[in-house]
Amino acid sequence: MPNRKKIGLPPGSMIFTGRRKMEDTHLKLVRYNENIYEVERVTNVSPAVDLQPDVVTWLDVRGLHDVKLIEEIGRFFHVHPLVLEDIVDTSQRPKFEEYDDGLFLIVRALEFDDKEMEIKTEQVGIFVGKDFVLSFQERAEDLFAPIEQRLANSSGKIRRRRGDYLAYALIDTVVDNYLVTLEKIEKEVDVLEEVIMDRPEANTKGRIHELRLATLALRKAVHPLREAINRFADSDHEVKSEDTDVFLRDLYDHTIQVMDMIETYRDMINGLYDLYLSEISFKMNNVMQTLTVMSTIFIPLSFLAGVYGMNFDNMPELHSRDGYYVLWAVMLGIAGILLLYFWRKNWL
Amino acid sequence: MPNRKKIGLPPGSMIFTGRRKMEDTHLKLVRYNENIYEVERVTNVSPAVDLQPDVVTWLDVRGLHDVKLIEEIGRFFHVHPLVLEDIVDTSQRPKFEEYDDGLFLIVRALEFDDKEMEIKTEQVGIFVGKDFVLSFQERAEDLFAPIEQRLANSSGKIRRRRGDYLAYALIDTVVDNYLVTLEKIEKEVDVLEEVIMDRPEANTKGRIHELRLATLALRKAVHPLREAINRFADSDHEVKSEDTDVFLRDLYDHTIQVMDMIETYRDMINGLYDLYLSEISFKMNNVMQTLTVMSTIFIPLSFLAGVYGMNFDNMPELHSRDGYYVLWAVMLGIAGILLLYFWRKNWL
Amino acid sequence: MPNRKKIGLPPGSMIFTGRRKMEDTHLKLVRYNENIYEVERVTNVSPAVDLQPDVVTWLDVRGLHDVKLIEEIGRFFHVHPLVLEDIVDTSQRPKFEEYDDGLFLIVRALEFDDKEMEIKTEQVGIFVGKDFVLSFQERAEDLFAPIEQRLANSSGKIRRRRGDYLAYALIDTVVDNYLVTLEKIEKEVDVLEEVIMDRPEANTKGRIHELRLATLALRKAVHPLREAINRFADSDHEVKSEDTDVFLRDLYDHTIQVMDMIETYRDMINGLYDLYLSEISFKMNNVMQTLTVMSTIFIPLSFLAGVYGMNFDNMPELHSRDGYYVLWAVMLGIAGILLLYFWRKNWL
Amino acid sequence: MPNRKKIGLPPGSMIFTGRRKMEDTHLKLVRYNENIYEVERVTNVSPAVDLQPDVVTWLDVRGLHDVKLIEEIGRFFHVHPLVLEDIVDTSQRPKFEEYDDGLFLIVRALEFDDKEMEIKTEQVGIFVGKDFVLSFQERAEDLFAPIEQRLANSSGKIRRRRGDYLAYALIDTVVDNYLVTLEKIEKEVDVLEEVIMDRPEANTKGRIHELRLATLALRKAVHPLREAINRFADSDHEVKSEDTDVFLRDLYDHTIQVMDMIETYRDMINGLYDLYLSEISFKMNNVMQTLTVMSTIFIPLSFLAGVYGMNFDNMPELHSRDGYYVLWAVMLGIAGILLLYFWRKNWL
Amino acid sequence: MPNRKKIGLPPGSMIFTGRRKMEDTHLKLVRYNENIYEVERVTNVSPAVDLQPDVVTWLDVRGLHDVKLIEEIGRFFHVHPLVLEDIVDTSQRPKFEEYDDGLFLIVRALEFDDKEMEIKTEQVGIFVGKDFVLSFQERAEDLFAPIEQRLANSSGKIRRRRGDYLAYALIDTVVDNYLVTLEKIEKEVDVLEEVIMDRPEANTKGRIHELRLATLALRKAVHPLREAINRFADSDHEVKSEDTDVFLRDLYDHTIQVMDMIETYRDMINGLYDLYLSEISFKMNNVMQTLTVMSTIFIPLSFLAGVYGMNFDNMPELHSRDGYYVLWAVMLGIAGILLLYFWRKNWL
Repeated sequence: MPNRKKIGLPPGSMIFTGRRKMEDTHLKLVRYNENIYEVERVTNVSPAVDLQPDVVTWLDVRGLHDVKLIEEIGRFFHVHPLVLEDIVDTSQRPKFEEYDDGLFLIVRALEFDDKEMEIKTEQVGIFVGKDFVLSFQERAEDLFAPIEQRLANSSGKIRRRRGDYLAYALIDTVVDNYLVTLEKIEKEVDVLEEVIMDRPEANTKGRIHELRLATLALRKAVHPLREAINRFADSDHEVKSEDTDVFLRDLYDHTIQVMDMIETYRDMINGLYDLYLSEISFKMNNVMQTLTVMSTIFIPLSFLAGVYGMNFDNMPELHSRDGYYVLWAVMLGIAGILLLYFWRKNWL
Repeated sequence: MPNRKKIGLPPGSMIFTGRRKMEDTHLKLVRYNENIYEVERVTNVSPAVDLQPDVVTWLDVRGLHDVKLIEEIGRFFHVHPLVLEDIVDTSQRPKFEEYDDGLFLIVRALEFDDKEMEIKTEQVGIFVGKDFVLSFQERAEDLFAPIEQRLANSSGKIRRRRGDYLAYALIDTVVDNYLVTLEKIEKEVDVLEEVIMDRPEANTKGRIHELRLATLALRKAVHPLREAINRFADSDHEVKSEDTDVFLRDLYDHTIQVMDMIETYRDMINGLYDLYLSEISFKMNNVMQTLTVMSTIFIPLSFLAGVYGMNFDNMPELHSRDGYYVLWAVMLGIAGILLLYFWRKNWL
Repeated sequence: MPNRKKIGLPPGSMIFTGRRKMEDTHLKLVRYNENIYEVERVTNVSPAVDLQPDVVTWLDVRGLHDVKLIEEIGRFFHVHPLVLEDIVDTSQRPKFEEYDDGLFLIVRALEFDDKEMEIKTEQVGIFVGKDFVLSFQERAEDLFAPIEQRLANSSGKIRRRRGDYLAYALIDTVVDNYLVTLEKIEKEVDVLEEVIMDRPEANTKGRIHELRLATLALRKAVHPLREAINRFADSDHEVKSEDTDVFLRDLYDHTIQVMDMIETYRDMINGLYDLYLSEISFKMNNVMQTLTVMSTIFIPLSFLAGVYGMNFDNMPELHSRDGYYVLWAVMLGIAGILLLYFWRKNWL
Repeated sequence: MPNRKKIGLPPGSMIFTGRRKMEDTHLKLVRYNENIYEVERVTNVSPAVDLQPDVVTWLDVRGLHDVKLIEEIGRFFHVHPLVLEDIVDTSQRPKFEEYDDGLFLIVRALEFDDKEMEIKTEQVGIFVGKDFVLSFQERAEDLFAPIEQRLANSSGKIRRRRGDYLAYALIDTVVDNYLVTLEKIEKEVDVLEEVIMDRPEANTKGRIHELRLATLALRKAVHPLREAINRFADSDHEVKSEDTDVFLRDLYDHTIQVMDMIETYRDMINGLYDLYLSEISFKMNNVMQTLTVMSTIFIPLSFLAGVYGMNFDNMPELHSRDGYYVLWAVMLGIAGILLLYFWRKNWL
Repeated sequence: MPNRKKIGLPPGSMIFTGRRKMEDTHLKLVRYNENIYEVERVTNVSPAVDLQPDVVTWLDVRGLHDVKLIEEIGRFFHVHPLVLEDIVDTSQRPKFEEYDDGLFLIVRALEFDDKEMEIKTEQVGIFVGKDFVLSFQERAEDLFAPIEQRLANSSGKIRRRRGDYLAYALIDTVVDNYLVTLEKIEKEVDVLEEVIMDRPEANTKGRIHELRLATLALRKAVHPLREAINRFADSDHEVKSEDTDVFLRDLYDHTIQVMDMIETYRDMINGLYDLYLSEISFKMNNVMQTLTVMSTIFIPLSFLAGVYGMNFDNMPELHSRDGYYVLWAVMLGIAGILLLYFWRKNWL
């Protein structure tokens, strides 16, 4: 949805353009390095945060409607106003931007509501600064729980690495989640396929249409991500270490794989339309054949019955002794010939 | 619409090719820097304008039919004849051109008339000179009012910057306005979707068609803008300061976002056609099934009634005491068998 | 149309492959510079032409069937045999080629015959040599009359410039003429749109088809021109002055605009097909609904009438006093119920 | 057709994968330079061939099933095994390859069988060595007869040039032959168009389908040729002289022209489908209108006739004196009203 | 199928994501150079393998579910964890990756199950180290048997070359196998074409749909391979010798040929849909014509019969002596006129 709240405003104006998806804004402060790991729920940044060069400070913000608070956070971490503007404007495409003080990424988390056949997207903003990472989400749902667990368990190399790796891990989680969405869509495609082949219903075409809209939304959310990750990988900003490159390349491969799948599903859904239309056409043809065979056989017979139902004084056939039986023979003969004709035309 | 008024004329010939959309030509002279801000309505350029190196002079021209006046303005500001030709030829695609004395941009402002389902476009020409900006519009409508307000309020950095930033702000306003248009189109798409699913009417297909034409017009107007803004951002002309680049990149991103949306809407509108056709096919199939079931059941029954309405002298059944009741039984039996048959074929 | 007259012949073989579109070959010799302007109709080149370094000599040749004469012209002006071959082979795509002695361009002039809904193309060959320009057309029609007038009136800068500018002006005239063709096509599209919405006729689909073929022909003729003009603009051949570049860039912009329009018209014409098919489907659905409603209501009624037209001896209803009226009541009741049913299904 | 005979074999294995299209293998040895021209039919290479630096030796091989003979030829001329493998594997795409000892080209000669509506392709392999050219064809047909004639007549520059020019001339002949194929396809398209507009028959859709398959085959054969010729032109191998470049560029232009045409024909054939479907839809609509008008008018009339054919004892209308005439009047009135209704709906 | 087992796990986590396709894991150890050739079935790597600089050691692993064993193999050969992760995650796209210790390739072997009309893919991972090659397959089927035979027979140059050539040979075998799949698909397309032309059945559209899905799956598996092979060919890693390049270029050509074919089949299958729909439309039109002709001829006749079956007291025609015969004449006349009308409309 385009946002019209902002027309003509100067760039850098912070206007929250989404729907408020949670009551308060939750702030969670995570501080870690190879040796320490602390989690703290905070309500404001200034007193709680104490940036140290050897510790990665991750501030996880959920809920973007409180523009003032986000402005404060921005001021505290010296984040560029254009970044803040983008964070609260929840209609952004995925992108990557370099600023003097850090790297800024927008990705879109996806969810497929298979009842409403709708893609729900949530904007995730990630800012990687010198010793900190800020992440911004619209909802309270725990998208990044696996990351926290990995940090807590110190599993993998995550705690030995810096903020850029954390940013990679966050985006990787989002992209991994795409696969769940794709899986659901694939299931829907399979279900629809069977429904069409078996017995197309009144709402089948609507469901195909909604599925198509869902893949359109999906593509819109994922397509620019490829370029964003590519530019992230190519960046030589000081907050990014070279060690992260191999993982970003891997992430880039995943994104391309997701794009591939979306394109495949699009083709499959277009195929569903063709299948639906040919199914309906085939059925209609069958219906028409039934009607035609039935009508064509009985129309001449009924006509004959009508003729001999006429009340003309002078109709010799009526008075013939076997007229009635002869007529039956004639009618059966006509019916037989027509049946043969239709049988040879494969209409039966 | 191509303009045939100009075939074979030498380049630089100023011919107004649009329809006159207002009575007179309005000139508004705005002069500002960080300290001063003056607005003045003028009728001619020469006496009123006094270019000063530290003041940005913005001449806002509305109404392009008075070719002579525009020629005068061009002469006063030393604008290249090819620029003037383009300004009054209102069928130009968006473009960016560098001249020795300044930068010239054409963008197209859009409006979606949702009654007529039509995109109305207006050509906006912007020339950025050393200490001045010229803007040319076809209509009197106050497209740039927010900019004037920002200038008046001195909000944002706009008054601290030079003419190239003003040009950026003007184009940004135009692009922001695209979002309003897109919002309207999205609303129309949603409405049509519901209409098709619910009850397609005689004019539904016409409205889909008009919506498609509207997106075609939209695409034609927006597509070349991307390249134009890109070249604006890449330009190293003396009238452009490097500070403006970050904003132009932002604008470029917006334009790509608009393009993305247009492509998505195009796909959605194509989807509407498919939906419409499958809806109609599905409905027709239902109609045919109804007809076929009804006809097929009654055709043999009517035939039998016809047979026993014949006037043959010798028809023993007619004189049987229970013949009439037997026939009813037979007819009900036939109807029952056919109903069963259709029920099993899912035609009921 | 491909030309099969030439298979296996050595390159440089001059074979006229078009249809002869005029009786004789007309040669017109124009010589001009800032001070002089002479026009002369000639029948042969050798005696008439006297190339002078300060005068642009323009030989305008109309009619290409006289291969010998064209060979003579070629010899006189030292034109490469491959150029001559291309000039008389009227099935060339637009192209630009550099030779040691000059530049060679092929463009295709277009005309839209709106009765036959057909694009007619004519090959125009232009060779720019050191002090001369040769132009070759198939027909006698005065495509270049506006140029001659500009030369005669000395309007614009045309007489102050050299042959490369003349070549530009000739091509510009051809491209300007495309707009007339496009205007006609746009008009046809509009007419067809209305016809389809209002009352599709038997030949409507044929006209859409022809219009589509016309845009295909148009695209084929214009598409390669873009590249040709681009290469003309990029050329640094000695016969081309740098001053012409800005005009060629302008011309390039025009060509892209024409391409844009053709693509838009193609999309519009594809839209016409969709509109046509959905119109026909919608109409057919209406027709079928009418038939179905009418049939379905009367089929059971006619059956009942048939039943009571039977001649069984023992049919008690027939002898009931009010049987006839009761039956009418039953029949009206059935009709009423069915009407209600169809009304609720929106089939009425 | 892919060839499965070769799976897992080492590269360089010579397996003839085509169908044998002629009895024996024909070898024709042509030796020429500006002064001499000798043609000789040979059965084996070793004794007959005597390579001389100033003479171009062209060995034309027809029939590829005799793998041994071709291996011998390869050994004699020091041709790389991969080249020999490709020559006898007749399912290759057009390609260009450089080897130390020469250049290798594969092109596909085409023939359109307009009875079966099928493209028949034949693989032509050409190897250009230092003083010789080898050409390999599958069939005995004289595709290269015009070249031999040009050599014999010494027309054009062909005998003054070396083997690379001969290779160019051979490929040029193949490409020129494409135009014959395209001409035939264009004719078929025109015929089909008329058939569809006039009277679509049962096999019309099959012919459109076959024509589409033919253009697919065509495209597959021609598409890679463009790249091959481009690389031939760009090659700086010692067996290629720079003089040939201008001719190869010309050939490249021809190939692009052929590609253009194929794309245009594809669009035209897709257009035929649309035309066919809309023709059928339009006809069906007409058919249904006829049925509906006829049925709708007579259904109520027949019902009324049925009503007054009933045998109720008490039907006062039957005994009215003018009942019959009144009924006729009523029936004509109903018919008239319905006719008016249909006429205003444009169904008549 | 996307795999959701891995969301949020750290990179390098080895999770087998496929279905287990065989009981145990088979390890086959092949060691060869120009002089020696040994094959050995092993159950574990450590004791059996003894890498020697002059011998190529090829470990062929079948069955990927035993993650531990594969981890052990990885450790033994110093394979990067990301490689091991990819090997057991069987949903990878084809790709090529360079690591410090070797080259890693993923290709997908294909099989077309023509009963279920389904493409079955199997992931094949190949790692080329300094003196060894590891290959990983999901199933026990002997895809690489021809390679072993060539090694055993010492046919071709395979034993004289190093591991990179073996990797090439393995991939080449996989790509050669694609041709078998394509051949089967082509056969299916041909069969379906005939079925549609001859007598489209209820499941025809479903088979077209499945065939389309198969080409989608095919494309997804083959498309990225092109890039992978290209990067393999371009790699200058120490384990790759330059001699292999010419073979990789050949392989690259084959892959493009396969891609070409897939695209052609896709177009053909889309063509099948069009053919199917036009066939159904044509048939339906025929059916409707039959019904319409039959109905239209008999409807007025039956009406007339109905009229003269009425029981009005006063119907003079009934008492006319020749009334019956006159009516027959009138009815035949009407039938004749209608037949003529339909015959001229080509509806018969």
